[in-house]
Amino acid sequence: MGKIQMFEKPLGMRDSFPEVNEQKEYIRSTARNFIRNKGYDFIKTPSVEYFETIGKASAIDESSLFKLVDNQGETLVLRPDMTTPIARIAASKLLKEKNPLRLAYYANVFRAQQREGGRPAEFEQLGLELIGDFSAYGDSEIIHTAVELVKTLGVERFRITIGHAGLLTAFLTNNTNTVEQVDTLRQLLVEKNFVGFEQKLDDLGLLEEQKENLTKLIDYTIDFKTFENFRPFLTDEQQYLIDQVEQLKRLLKLQLSDPSIVSFDFSLASHMSYYTGMLFEIYAAGSGFPIGNGGRYDELFQQFGEQVGAIGFGIRVDRLLEVLRQDIVKEKRTLLLFTEGAYLEANKLAEERRNNAERVTLQYVEGVHDLDAYKQNFDEVLIVSEGGSLHE
Amino acid sequence: MGKIQMFEKPLGMRDSFPEVNEQKEYIRSTARNFIRNKGYDFIKTPSVEYFETIGKASAIDESSLFKLVDNQGETLVLRPDMTTPIARIAASKLLKEKNPLRLAYYANVFRAQQREGGRPAEFEQLGLELIGDFSAYGDSEIIHTAVELVKTLGVERFRITIGHAGLLTAFLTNNTNTVEQVDTLRQLLVEKNFVGFEQKLDDLGLLEEQKENLTKLIDYTIDFKTFENFRPFLTDEQQYLIDQVEQLKRLLKLQLSDPSIVSFDFSLASHMSYYTGMLFEIYAAGSGFPIGNGGRYDELFQQFGEQVGAIGFGIRVDRLLEVLRQDIVKEKRTLLLFTEGAYLEANKLAEERRNNAERVTLQYVEGVHDLDAYKQNFDEVLIVSEGGSLHE
Repeated sequence: MGKIQMFEKPLGMRDSFPEVNEQKEYIRSTARNFIRNKGYDFIKTPSVEYFETIGKASAIDESSLFKLVDNQGETLVLRPDMTTPIARIAASKLLKEKNPLRLAYYANVFRAQQREGGRPAEFEQLGLELIGDFSAYGDSEIIHTAVELVKTLGVERFRITIGHAGLLTAFLTNNTNTVEQVDTLRQLLVEKNFVGFEQKLDDLGLLEEQKENLTKLIDYTIDFKTFENFRPFLTDEQQYLIDQVEQLKRLLKLQLSDPSIVSFDFSLASHMSYYTGMLFEIYAAGSGFPIGNGGRYDELFQQFGEQVGAIGFGIRVDRLLEVLRQDIVKEKRTLLLFTEGAYLEANKLAEERRNNAERVTLQYVEGVHDLDAYKQNFDEVLIVSEGGSLHE
Repeated sequence: MGKIQMFEKPLGMRDSFPEVNEQKEYIRSTARNFIRNKGYDFIKTPSVEYFETIGKASAIDESSLFKLVDNQGETLVLRPDMTTPIARIAASKLLKEKNPLRLAYYANVFRAQQREGGRPAEFEQLGLELIGDFSAYGDSEIIHTAVELVKTLGVERFRITIGHAGLLTAFLTNNTNTVEQVDTLRQLLVEKNFVGFEQKLDDLGLLEEQKENLTKLIDYTIDFKTFENFRPFLTDEQQYLIDQVEQLKRLLKLQLSDPSIVSFDFSLASHMSYYTGMLFEIYAAGSGFPIGNGGRYDELFQQFGEQVGAIGFGIRVDRLLEVLRQDIVKEKRTLLLFTEGAYLEANKLAEERRNNAERVTLQYVEGVHDLDAYKQNFDEVLIVSEGGSLHE
């Protein structure tokens, strides 16, 4: 890289200009109200954490972490997600009574990028975590809340795909010979690289029966949504995983006004490696990437010394903006220009209008370089000079 | 430092728990509405910037910067203030027509700390910048807006002290022999170390007349608020600085409903080294530190290749919280416990209440470990079981 120009920003870092910023604000306040009414409390955590605690516990790959060294020589990271910091707080401060905790956040998270023009290195995420819950009611509450939130935010067409991390691990394990083979195949499913998945089956030296079973996982003609079809591929000890999914489906049917937006796909795998139970992705018309995802991560708390059931989801604000209509925020702007002697009068007029929730810019007329261009920014322009105000 | 414990956070980094977080949210939304109605547009900038651009241009001492190195080997900084990033954006994108720009922010900024128990390493700041304005109207608008904002946020007792960076430099220069002497004395004024200031006068080897004049600056019996008293200490070419302050005072008298909360003190100096014109600090009953400060910084834009007048102020949210009443946010919380068969009924009841803007937590009763302790978090508790709901 050559000399840095005065106006450059680091790789993947972006400014939010007023219009986009107001759209984000609309999302933020709408989501906050909705989530708070569901009984979740918003918290904030530091942007910077120890690598030893949050960096290592996070499900984000180490190469995507922004690392720095503090004055004491310790390695710090910019938070790569919010689930892990919330687990830290919950385990250390809030979970003393072992009762359910409902926490929420709207926060920026950081992912170091390798090349220009790619994904953002800092983006806003909103989400919530239900901590201290091992029940299917919790799973259902999280998915129901995600559905209602996305609807409340104005997304018109979306669907949710549900999988199960534990069930997938069991199925892959039953049909391979090593942990490495499980990881290799799971990674291809994370990338939704189904062609690569099928090709890899030949490379791994698996039995014909194993290959055949694994192919069924991604075969659209085999309907694993009819959960009974899946049972033969699991051992007796693993049948409870199907029971869990069946119970979740039953609760969602009770709870969702339109259960058809939810579908099950047991090939669903996440790059968030801490999921252990059900997991899901939210897709909306207008974005090729999921706008949100979530799941159950009962083992994350073991790193913080607790045995706690936990579920949560996060929504990416940048992707939400892509699928929402651009005119979600609209308002009138007034320019009130004043001449030398009319300062007091102009102030009074501006205050009157602002008290009626109008946005009024008060500006000394001689301070504007290009008046015609400046006026373009406003819906109404008034000039106040000694003796009275005048409509443009 | 020894081994990092699982729950530790880096030096000066803090969590915001729900109660404090809601207080911050109240401040944020109240301030946003107020500032937007004054015609300012909110923007966001990245948390991470190049050291070469923002780090060096910032008025924050280099030892307080969080530095990191990116994949390209460039040095990055966590933004230490918001004025410099806004100047970057204004100079590169928004200022093409040379017309006034009114921009605002609510953002966290970062200052590396040297020892435990000290100041926060990350804190939230809200503020605004009026860019492209050389007039006293601009100075007055900024101070007026600061006063009204602090009032709107509910601070009952506060005062604003106004100084002038250019005027102070002129006065110090007239009464010393080197730039180093000016810097030494100004630094003592920044620290409000008036005893040290007087002691230093002897060390610097100044003339008796210089020492006498300099003493007048911090002497409470010499009233430099009567600006005429100050004129004899300035050259003819410097008299315009007094004219500026007089004009500002006149405008504030017109604009402020209670001009007595504002006072002038020409010994006021800021650690923000980029101020060139008027500058001010906001003090509130309940905090030993200023809750906010601002000023004119006409030379900052020269670093970005533009000749632009600019003024702004920022308010520290953490200090504002110290001076506000603790009960600024109050709301009812309802717990709705349900038993196995009453899931659907409980859901319906919860939705009804949430639609009336009530905060309702829906919880499977068997999922609560310590019910008595859990209920303490709520104002009302209902149990829904098959056959009906029951008030606790």
